[in-house]
Amino acid sequence: MCRHITLKRRQKASLMAILLHNATLATMEGGYGLVPRGAVVIEGDAILWAGPIAALPAGLSNLSHHDAEGRLVTPGLIDCHTHVTYAGSRAREFEMRLQGASYEEIARAGGGILSTVSATRAATEDEIVAQSLPRLDALIASGATTVEVKSGYGLTVADELKLLRAARSLGRLRDVEIRTTHLAAHSIPPEYKGRAMAYIDEVAIPSLWQAKADGLADAVDAFCEGIAFSPEDVEHLFTYAQGLGLPLKLHAEQLSNLHGAALAARMGALSADHLEYLGLDGIAAMAASGTVAVILPGAFYTLRETKLPPTAELRAAGVPMAVATDLNPGTSPLASLPLAMNMACTLFRMTPEEALLGTTVHAARALGLTDRGRIAAGLRADLCLWDADHPSELSYLIGGPRLHARIFGGHLDA
Amino acid sequence: MCRHITLKRRQKASLMAILLHNATLATMEGGYGLVPRGAVVIEGDAILWAGPIAALPAGLSNLSHHDAEGRLVTPGLIDCHTHVTYAGSRAREFEMRLQGASYEEIARAGGGILSTVSATRAATEDEIVAQSLPRLDALIASGATTVEVKSGYGLTVADELKLLRAARSLGRLRDVEIRTTHLAAHSIPPEYKGRAMAYIDEVAIPSLWQAKADGLADAVDAFCEGIAFSPEDVEHLFTYAQGLGLPLKLHAEQLSNLHGAALAARMGALSADHLEYLGLDGIAAMAASGTVAVILPGAFYTLRETKLPPTAELRAAGVPMAVATDLNPGTSPLASLPLAMNMACTLFRMTPEEALLGTTVHAARALGLTDRGRIAAGLRADLCLWDADHPSELSYLIGGPRLHARIFGGHLDA
Ligand SMILES: [Zn+2]
Ligand SMILES: [Zn+2]
Repeated sequence: MCRHITLKRRQKASLMAILLHNATLATMEGGYGLVPRGAVVIEGDAILWAGPIAALPAGLSNLSHHDAEGRLVTPGLIDCHTHVTYAGSRAREFEMRLQGASYEEIARAGGGILSTVSATRAATEDEIVAQSLPRLDALIASGATTVEVKSGYGLTVADELKLLRAARSLGRLRDVEIRTTHLAAHSIPPEYKGRAMAYIDEVAIPSLWQAKADGLADAVDAFCEGIAFSPEDVEHLFTYAQGLGLPLKLHAEQLSNLHGAALAARMGALSADHLEYLGLDGIAAMAASGTVAVILPGAFYTLRETKLPPTAELRAAGVPMAVATDLNPGTSPLASLPLAMNMACTLFRMTPEEALLGTTVHAARALGLTDRGRIAAGLRADLCLWDADHPSELSYLIGGPRLHARIFGGHLDA
Repeated sequence: MCRHITLKRRQKASLMAILLHNATLATMEGGYGLVPRGAVVIEGDAILWAGPIAALPAGLSNLSHHDAEGRLVTPGLIDCHTHVTYAGSRAREFEMRLQGASYEEIARAGGGILSTVSATRAATEDEIVAQSLPRLDALIASGATTVEVKSGYGLTVADELKLLRAARSLGRLRDVEIRTTHLAAHSIPPEYKGRAMAYIDEVAIPSLWQAKADGLADAVDAFCEGIAFSPEDVEHLFTYAQGLGLPLKLHAEQLSNLHGAALAARMGALSADHLEYLGLDGIAAMAASGTVAVILPGAFYTLRETKLPPTAELRAAGVPMAVATDLNPGTSPLASLPLAMNMACTLFRMTPEEALLGTTVHAARALGLTDRGRIAAGLRADLCLWDADHPSELSYLIGGPRLHARIFGGHLDA
């Protein structure tokens, strides 16, 4: 961690640098990368130096101090897969199901994903922002400093763009970086039933073109599944996206094996997500391409699935695994990365170290970001201070407010 | 809810009563007991009146007002089964298991329940209080106003009493009511291996006598299981406890069916807890005696158990079901009642209404408390204000800070 510091940066630092000291650092360099009695020098929005306090360069000791009081300091957490922006609530549908209502009864009562689509189409951009903020605030309160947000509940050109604009607004309203992903290819709306490719051509591609033109999309995603889009539909959309220079992500192998992950890997996707039904061909393709496996235990838990994603095989093949909330109203109303980490360990037998790598280093990679996810000189000063002694506690404890403070872009939360 | 108010109480109220208005009340009277546009009049530490604002008695309208801003107001939540007080951490053991360590390796590294016993015996009462406070604070932050705390990691007379004193101290340090339960019969320490009844006679009973004499125990509990105490051991201890006039609770049928619940019910216990392996005889006995079934999904989840407690049969038999965290370092490091409610719904197919009754009305009953658990005149003014429109949201959402404020004994949290 102890990187060379240029004089130029050190001179800038003299203006506004702070020394966070008395910390146990989990730098996430090559695993936890633990540094007892560690310190971080922050200059502006970047980390200028990080390492053991005993190794602090002399020229850096004359800074304003912030005492971490022995706390664990990790990189700010990164939620690389969410559907935060939508309107309406599905809590009553959750209740009806548990009261024994059939799917038909729930549909008649206006439930299911289409209820979210209807509510989202009916809502203004401002209403979507207002309804999404509490969800984003919950993620922030549990340690997130970067949150990916997908569209996908509009399913018209105008409504998908509305969702992406709402996502961008969220990033202006809170101390968090929002990365947007265009996901018009999330579900086939009733008006395109049986005409998935027409939907791709008439809604997904035009909205993607406009989103790119308006700077609203950092990546593109699709839901590759029997109940949604086929690999052919996805390849058509992805080929267009590649022409626009947009990175690719894919919901793949959640409920069956359509070999979507192999397709995504072959096309150089940043990530393939869910992967419960991933086969050996998909694992080999992902390993070869460096595609990140995004593990989403919240949906598995909520749907009471029994088919586990092949975490041991992914580990053996050296595929990087990210962990995310999949925050969405139907299958994963989960608004906490530490809870997602606990589920990844408890349900999917990942280790706490893998789970934390999955919400830092590998989550950054799943978003194509190289400037965050570790505590190292030159990276963004996004940090979490936890009331914990060891990073295993973040995955071990279930619930409870353990985040002491968050530093976003060099600024400590009030 | 609209009860008759005596003049005497109303005169007292004129001194210090407040009107909480603009609330959606979930009074938990006969189910959710929803009151839209509801209000609560609080006098001192008690509820003086609750009902629709339109029905507010004229003599009560001239009070200092607190605007709930349309929020959902529920009774303060009650966690009726926890093991909050202990020393040491099991996070590294959790990590070792997931790294593939065998039970033998973990035991050699000092893991398992005995590591908690060793750390607890070595800790002073003040150290136990200090280490337990963050766990209690997490419960409070997620809505608890009453928390039951068991001993059970000391397993000597002196150490069990130390734990009960620590639990009482917690209640003096925070705005929460602590109910203590003596659980010396939690595990057989190595020095009594194979001599469970001797342990009951030489440790459990003497420590219970002293706890009762010192006012440290509100109830007595035991762990009835093949790896712990037999029904005969339990009956011996419970007979003694009945002589002291202490209410009974029992960990029963978690890992096998020893018919502990039927024993507990026959002896008039307040509750039988866990119950995954509960049979029809136990259900019938509990229904006949009015013994509460305390449902603990956190341990089921953490241990990845597959045998579900018979919630449908308990419902059909009219056995009241409570829901609790079972907060403990080994099998349920869960510090949030709303998360326990989500697990009870998701994993055990309870309804959100049953889950909320389980952390209010039925949790109070599982502790033998008649002065709380509903919003009604004459009961304690322990209330939660949630950023929610409907009580189903409390069980539906997973994680995230949704508690806006808590009122404990008539006092609003700062
Ligand atoms: Zn998703
Ligand atoms: Zn227990």
